[in-house]
Amino acid sequence: MESAIGVLVSQFKAFAGSDGSSDTLSRDEFQSLVKTQLPNFVKNADDPAVIDRLMDSIDENNDGELTFLEFWQLIGRLANQHGGFIQ
Amino acid sequence: MESAIGVLVSQFKAFAGSDGSSDTLSRDEFQSLVKTQLPNFVKNADDPAVIDRLMDSIDENNDGELTFLEFWQLIGRLANQHGGFIQ
Repeated sequence: MESAIGVLVSQFKAFAGSDGSSDTLSRDEFQSLVKTQLPNFVKNADDPAVIDRLMDSIDENNDGELTFLEFWQLIGRLANQHGGFIQ
Repeated sequence: MESAIGVLVSQFKAFAGSDGSSDTLSRDEFQSLVKTQLPNFVKNADDPAVIDRLMDSIDENNDGELTFLEFWQLIGRLANQHGGFIQ
């Protein structure tokens, strides 16, 4: 499990580091991550409305940036659906 | 990222399925998962007090069982520390 967690951390940092702080994902960084890394978990990631809806649902402080923990909650919801667990 | 998420989901199910429902981790299932899968992220997992403290911190409804999302929050905290992100 630790190596799988390491992959998620390093991928977050890779995309978060594109511009500005590598501690947070900007909207554009988030969209490119979702499009390239989560093609099966998130459909229609090309559609800006899909990205806006996702970001609004997890950007708790509405600063237009996603912290690692905010991002982690999104992946948890996707994993929960993917795993077929009780919602 | 999707395959890393898949690993975390399948490992959760593998340990959760040992006894009773495979939707939740009992305390014993949780301890064996932590000891074998998170040896570097959680030190002294042999110590029952460590496991009790971890479980109490994430078992929101205190039913002695961890849902996937409750478990996912713990991994997020560990990953956040591991990634060195601002707490």
